[in-house]
Amino acid sequence: MWDNVTEALDTFDRDDFVKVKGLTQIFHNRPQLTIHKVRRMDDSEIDFADYFPSSRRDPGEMWTELRATVAAIGNPHLKALVEALLDDEDVARRMRRAPAAKQIHHAYLGGLIEHVLSLCTLARMVAAHYPNIDYDLLLAGVVLHDIGKIYELNYERGFSYSDQGQLLGHITIALGMVADKLRGLPDFPPPLRSLVEHMILSHHGQLEFGSPKLPQFPEALLLHYLDDMDSKMECMRALIENDRQVEGCFTTWNTALERAALKKDRYLDGALESAPPGPGPEGAPPAEQREADSAFAGKLRQALQPAEAKQES
Amino acid sequence: MWDNVTEALDTFDRDDFVKVKGLTQIFHNRPQLTIHKVRRMDDSEIDFADYFPSSRRDPGEMWTELRATVAAIGNPHLKALVEALLDDEDVARRMRRAPAAKQIHHAYLGGLIEHVLSLCTLARMVAAHYPNIDYDLLLAGVVLHDIGKIYELNYERGFSYSDQGQLLGHITIALGMVADKLRGLPDFPPPLRSLVEHMILSHHGQLEFGSPKLPQFPEALLLHYLDDMDSKMECMRALIENDRQVEGCFTTWNTALERAALKKDRYLDGALESAPPGPGPEGAPPAEQREADSAFAGKLRQALQPAEAKQES
Amino acid sequence: MWDNVTEALDTFDRDDFVKVKGLTQIFHNRPQLTIHKVRRMDDSEIDFADYFPSSRRDPGEMWTELRATVAAIGNPHLKALVEALLDDEDVARRMRRAPAAKQIHHAYLGGLIEHVLSLCTLARMVAAHYPNIDYDLLLAGVVLHDIGKIYELNYERGFSYSDQGQLLGHITIALGMVADKLRGLPDFPPPLRSLVEHMILSHHGQLEFGSPKLPQFPEALLLHYLDDMDSKMECMRALIENDRQVEGCFTTWNTALERAALKKDRYLDGALESAPPGPGPEGAPPAEQREADSAFAGKLRQALQPAEAKQES
Amino acid sequence: MWDNVTEALDTFDRDDFVKVKGLTQIFHNRPQLTIHKVRRMDDSEIDFADYFPSSRRDPGEMWTELRATVAAIGNPHLKALVEALLDDEDVARRMRRAPAAKQIHHAYLGGLIEHVLSLCTLARMVAAHYPNIDYDLLLAGVVLHDIGKIYELNYERGFSYSDQGQLLGHITIALGMVADKLRGLPDFPPPLRSLVEHMILSHHGQLEFGSPKLPQFPEALLLHYLDDMDSKMECMRALIENDRQVEGCFTTWNTALERAALKKDRYLDGALESAPPGPGPEGAPPAEQREADSAFAGKLRQALQPAEAKQES
Amino acid sequence: MWDNVTEALDTFDRDDFVKVKGLTQIFHNRPQLTIHKVRRMDDSEIDFADYFPSSRRDPGEMWTELRATVAAIGNPHLKALVEALLDDEDVARRMRRAPAAKQIHHAYLGGLIEHVLSLCTLARMVAAHYPNIDYDLLLAGVVLHDIGKIYELNYERGFSYSDQGQLLGHITIALGMVADKLRGLPDFPPPLRSLVEHMILSHHGQLEFGSPKLPQFPEALLLHYLDDMDSKMECMRALIENDRQVEGCFTTWNTALERAALKKDRYLDGALESAPPGPGPEGAPPAEQREADSAFAGKLRQALQPAEAKQES
Amino acid sequence: MWDNVTEALDTFDRDDFVKVKGLTQIFHNRPQLTIHKVRRMDDSEIDFADYFPSSRRDPGEMWTELRATVAAIGNPHLKALVEALLDDEDVARRMRRAPAAKQIHHAYLGGLIEHVLSLCTLARMVAAHYPNIDYDLLLAGVVLHDIGKIYELNYERGFSYSDQGQLLGHITIALGMVADKLRGLPDFPPPLRSLVEHMILSHHGQLEFGSPKLPQFPEALLLHYLDDMDSKMECMRALIENDRQVEGCFTTWNTALERAALKKDRYLDGALESAPPGPGPEGAPPAEQREADSAFAGKLRQALQPAEAKQES
Repeated sequence: MWDNVTEALDTFDRDDFVKVKGLTQIFHNRPQLTIHKVRRMDDSEIDFADYFPSSRRDPGEMWTELRATVAAIGNPHLKALVEALLDDEDVARRMRRAPAAKQIHHAYLGGLIEHVLSLCTLARMVAAHYPNIDYDLLLAGVVLHDIGKIYELNYERGFSYSDQGQLLGHITIALGMVADKLRGLPDFPPPLRSLVEHMILSHHGQLEFGSPKLPQFPEALLLHYLDDMDSKMECMRALIENDRQVEGCFTTWNTALERAALKKDRYLDGALESAPPGPGPEGAPPAEQREADSAFAGKLRQALQPAEAKQES
Repeated sequence: MWDNVTEALDTFDRDDFVKVKGLTQIFHNRPQLTIHKVRRMDDSEIDFADYFPSSRRDPGEMWTELRATVAAIGNPHLKALVEALLDDEDVARRMRRAPAAKQIHHAYLGGLIEHVLSLCTLARMVAAHYPNIDYDLLLAGVVLHDIGKIYELNYERGFSYSDQGQLLGHITIALGMVADKLRGLPDFPPPLRSLVEHMILSHHGQLEFGSPKLPQFPEALLLHYLDDMDSKMECMRALIENDRQVEGCFTTWNTALERAALKKDRYLDGALESAPPGPGPEGAPPAEQREADSAFAGKLRQALQPAEAKQES
Repeated sequence: MWDNVTEALDTFDRDDFVKVKGLTQIFHNRPQLTIHKVRRMDDSEIDFADYFPSSRRDPGEMWTELRATVAAIGNPHLKALVEALLDDEDVARRMRRAPAAKQIHHAYLGGLIEHVLSLCTLARMVAAHYPNIDYDLLLAGVVLHDIGKIYELNYERGFSYSDQGQLLGHITIALGMVADKLRGLPDFPPPLRSLVEHMILSHHGQLEFGSPKLPQFPEALLLHYLDDMDSKMECMRALIENDRQVEGCFTTWNTALERAALKKDRYLDGALESAPPGPGPEGAPPAEQREADSAFAGKLRQALQPAEAKQES
Repeated sequence: MWDNVTEALDTFDRDDFVKVKGLTQIFHNRPQLTIHKVRRMDDSEIDFADYFPSSRRDPGEMWTELRATVAAIGNPHLKALVEALLDDEDVARRMRRAPAAKQIHHAYLGGLIEHVLSLCTLARMVAAHYPNIDYDLLLAGVVLHDIGKIYELNYERGFSYSDQGQLLGHITIALGMVADKLRGLPDFPPPLRSLVEHMILSHHGQLEFGSPKLPQFPEALLLHYLDDMDSKMECMRALIENDRQVEGCFTTWNTALERAALKKDRYLDGALESAPPGPGPEGAPPAEQREADSAFAGKLRQALQPAEAKQES
Repeated sequence: MWDNVTEALDTFDRDDFVKVKGLTQIFHNRPQLTIHKVRRMDDSEIDFADYFPSSRRDPGEMWTELRATVAAIGNPHLKALVEALLDDEDVARRMRRAPAAKQIHHAYLGGLIEHVLSLCTLARMVAAHYPNIDYDLLLAGVVLHDIGKIYELNYERGFSYSDQGQLLGHITIALGMVADKLRGLPDFPPPLRSLVEHMILSHHGQLEFGSPKLPQFPEALLLHYLDDMDSKMECMRALIENDRQVEGCFTTWNTALERAALKKDRYLDGALESAPPGPGPEGAPPAEQREADSAFAGKLRQALQPAEAKQES
Repeated sequence: MWDNVTEALDTFDRDDFVKVKGLTQIFHNRPQLTIHKVRRMDDSEIDFADYFPSSRRDPGEMWTELRATVAAIGNPHLKALVEALLDDEDVARRMRRAPAAKQIHHAYLGGLIEHVLSLCTLARMVAAHYPNIDYDLLLAGVVLHDIGKIYELNYERGFSYSDQGQLLGHITIALGMVADKLRGLPDFPPPLRSLVEHMILSHHGQLEFGSPKLPQFPEALLLHYLDDMDSKMECMRALIENDRQVEGCFTTWNTALERAALKKDRYLDGALESAPPGPGPEGAPPAEQREADSAFAGKLRQALQPAEAKQES
């Protein structure tokens, strides 16, 4: 398609989906794509889950679970506040879709709600274990702490930070969302409001991680630990599951965890000795983990692997 | 007054002002106070400036200067926002009285407004120096960045953190105050709002100093530098001016500055060699600077210094 | 007893218990003790729980619970290893008595086993939550990670570090204890041994906290988070419960947590505004929390508080 | 020119300027240069400003401004010292040419003097604002603090560190230059000398930034803040102005500033949402800003962009 | 050899040695290797020193020197312990072969024993200098501190970490080796054992470098300093000796040393001014030093450099 | 002497020596001194070694050893430079008297030269061990690196920093001293000068310890390690030797070393279990080591200990 290239280029933009008709061939050991026709696709033609990594759980089902959990909050003030947020249609729509992070953990569509639900379960268990923990307060913190991420990130086409997200961060955005809803709840007790705000503000646990205050009461402390634990557990799970290293018992180096992880089962089964990667003195740590592929990426790889060229229509 | 002690103790509380009638004597080289009568004073009997360190400038005069500066803001949105805050009576009353910090710098009544006015002058100079700086935006940042301190601190009786101040901090409090006033300004452009919020959020300049975002545009960067410079300059000025060390050319060690300061004039005049204090291996750094005394403290010291006992009525 | 003082002093030594007969009086507003007779007590006369802070739970009951939990481990190798340690009489005796730390958390007799049992419950919950977690491995890590503390600390008379504890630390001591027992278990799979050793080695989670390796598989990561969370939760609980500050909603400053904690209930009940302590620029952080008193300390305080002198026999 | 390649290569060396005659063509979508003739150019043929980024201000004009500023210093000792340095012909020649840094800020020919002049203006303003500031002392510090850079850097061909610069740094070099000139000023008061030396020594503000002493008097503290502020302001200005990112409101990541910067005007104008770059977990931060191009680089790019090959003579 | 490629590939594996028959040619300015025949070689055909960098000293000679040094230890317990380890055949075999590190220093076959012998000499000198140093104890520490490296690293084919090395580290491995041998030495005094273990444990000198305890007695402190000094001296020596930079007086940047090194002799001889590399704001520090080549690598380079193709049989 | 107190006080000043005639008594269990007569002593009446801790070695003997070592330097330039400094009478006088530090190590009269001589011996040994080390260059670095301390510290009456020492530090002072002497040595090769200056500049080894450059060639690296090792060894030696703790095997906590030290001999002899001090959560680390007493301090303590009052004439 060396003709009309310029015209074709004008028909679509960055982050658009395009339909390509052409020929893939192996040329000098590398796949080569000859394009015969290309056109911009309409959103209605697209199933996003084909192109972006997504949660294995169904968004609708997760949403139902979240609403049921929130419906069981005993404290009427906290319940009203959390429900006011989830009743907001824009929040509800985005909450079903948003990833929990750009890259570090739960970085896939539906990742945020999946992370929140995991924390809900943990919160119920742990609140039962520690006497004196106010489960309602902890749960409100769990549902609200990351809610600013629905506006901090862009996730319509690829995952990135929004301008507002870059300037303010999800903690400040969440505080603003809470303040907006509280205007409709004039009886919400001011000290309880400060506790909820403090939990959102302090959940990163340390100043250098972006929380300007350290957790100062038990529920805030628990929220921080559970959130950190669940994020890192998911990060390590994905690292091990998605690792493509065929030799040895260690995954590639992961920058977020600042370590490589052991593939425990392979190690216990007496796999061959491996050479685990390390940041060592090479300076640049190895490339990061590859996240769970979208369905499309898998098909594309498959399509390109056969040495025989095949024509697509 | 060994009689009726309990009854007398019940008539006043911590942080109350009391009027004492008694006798001061020197006993074994130490002042001793024999109390004959004691009663709680009413606020109307008290001139607070007699008991707390205060700015040398008149609060009313500083307030007038601030309002005049703000009145000259060209951008109508920014001017409306800042004026909405200063028009709030509670803000106006507290702003005239609040210190800029519990201890580090400008820690006296009227210290906050004095610090803000100093920054206004610096902002005007520096905005004239750097082309492309939006003076209105910078000035709005200057007036609003520390406004949360009026609720973060208690300064009616002694200086301390309020509960809300301890849980949220002045940055978060300021963002809430701005959001409240913006509800009355529906035409305020959202991107401009994000810029103002970012300036408040980032003015500490680093995450470990409690700013969850680094300054990301020139006005925010300038605000951070000017604020930091003005605080440290005032801190060093007070350290040198209030130092009671009689020997040598160095002040006592200052914990906020993490250094002792040179008394330049004395040094240039060829003062005797001094033994500057250092934190060295002694472990505990020397006690902090003593702030400018209140008028009362001065009189009290005077009253106690004469070796002769004298009776007060 | 100004006679025979020297002889009396020779009859006992530091950390001995002595029985004193004398008179307590208030002299110049301070309690004064006049000693008439003093003699060293025999250990058989003493109930240590009268003098040292102790767990509220009965040591024997906790021991039974721990043995039952361990008995349910499914993996025969792990079960054999953990039981070999608990069957060791010296381990069993010390395990029932040892505190979990000299000062930071669970710093009372029985504190170690109480902390381990709390972790056992958490481990069971969390292993049920995360698929793929090997509960047996996690539980073995929970029981063994701090077992070196029974030799790292001295807790017969006061709590302090032993010489060996100071030179090697509880992690290295635990590795040695495990190695000793493994000599009697020749079929223990070497890779499984490395996993157990790694969990002990890495449970502090970071190099600067004394773990020379970061947790490298999910069970090790979980152990680290649960241990850290449970320690800090107990530390904050004790801080709030034992705080003697009568005014305000915040406790005194706690050095281990590097913060003061909010007394949430008092705050929600609308307590008076408090002046929370802060490390601020004063340099020396406030004195640390006071641990739960021993029964004796309580009685002693009581005995001294009445203004009337009373004679003990 | 596949003939006589070796001979041609011998006629010039690294960092020489060469004149090339040849043909630029587009080959496989990449520009290709076929060389017909190449020869080393003489320095007299070259206008360096064609090849290196340069200040927009004229070096001669800046020099005149600097001399006038210095001529107005009131303190005769300080004036004599600063003038002794500027009267040195080698200093004068290099001062007109040196960049202020290899890469971070003002990294272009004439950048050092431009930075110094900017600081002179700031110093005058700020000294007027803070009573008790000795403007003469501050100005001497401003002119001398970075003067060692004229020998720390190489800037005849490309910008790099000299051997001496690498071994000693510009602070130590400046102290040596000052000491040399002071030998001709026997009446210079020793304490004043220590103040000047301290200002040079401490201007980086912190030990880890290469200042072995922290600023210990107000003029030294001001010098540090102004220097840091002016460097970072220029760095951010250049980052925004030279950014080639066409989409979004954020520049590429800047390593010196450790952030991306917002293009404020574009953001306020309602530009499309952008995906700001972040160092995030990708490990390697994005490539640094591209500095203001030299005139030559611009022409070269222009020459290569047209798809048509054109012949140069 | 485009025929039978698959079969040929199946005859060998990663890290195998293969014998290749083919043709090297220069094609488009790059060496190109056409393979005619390829087969896996047997270990018996290979002299490993041809392929891996090795110590310049003979392993057997170094071993003899080490045994003689150890034989002269006066303290019978320490001598027995060290000899028990060196008498272990697997230890002895590996000790003669192991590198001291994967990359940082002494990263060549025989590097570990060479490093230990260097420390033996230093220990003798320094123990003679400081009265009260127990030379036997220091020497035992020198021989044992890194002995775990023989199992921490893989060095049969390339240098990498073993799984056990990655999970436990050489300090923990060494403690296990010592414990194993001590079982055969029942009279070894327990306090002396703690001292030896402490020396191994603390030799990295700081927690963040993987030593969970700081050196607490003079011999442990000396061991740490000598070990650190000898490693860094060898690292800098290799950096300077192997540097391929032809211009200037500075080597390339070294990540382990976090600096470039000066080629002192060249500098003193008045070499041309150089442009030393720095990490500066480019972000990624320059590539690391290239270690002493194996003999094979040298020959290979030689073989590829001539422009003429030559056939190997 | 309650009469004429004011007159008596006017006859002497801080840091003067006074002769006191009076009576020491035990009053309420505390020593009490009744002064009958007091007068200022003349310097000629005083043997300073009676009042300040001093080296055990004779200053004259150490000076002779240092001169002999320097006389043997082979490189004529380096020898001339070092001798020019030692020939300076003020340097020579101070060098015999100066301590090596205010408190950390060798903090006694003659401590500096004792430290330098120890390093000379170490330098000779180590230069013999590492081929390619230029012993003359290393030795010059050893003698000159701390020479600025003779002006950085005051040590006529008590040990403290001088004003110049506080403003510039001993590294900058040493560079100035070297520059002064080099003016008399016009043939000194400039590159050699840079090497000497670099060694002085970099000997603290890290920026945060006040060296603005890291050691960049082997002699500079060795100087740093030997200096650090010798300082810490002496610090630990003094800590153990001077410790007054009677129980246990550990010394009190030492702030400079950030640890307590083991009294190895006592530990090996099976001393009782001790409770080593730790900084733990108590916040304030224990008081620092007490340095070797002066003779006078010893006598004073002795004089005060007897319970019987005795009269001095």
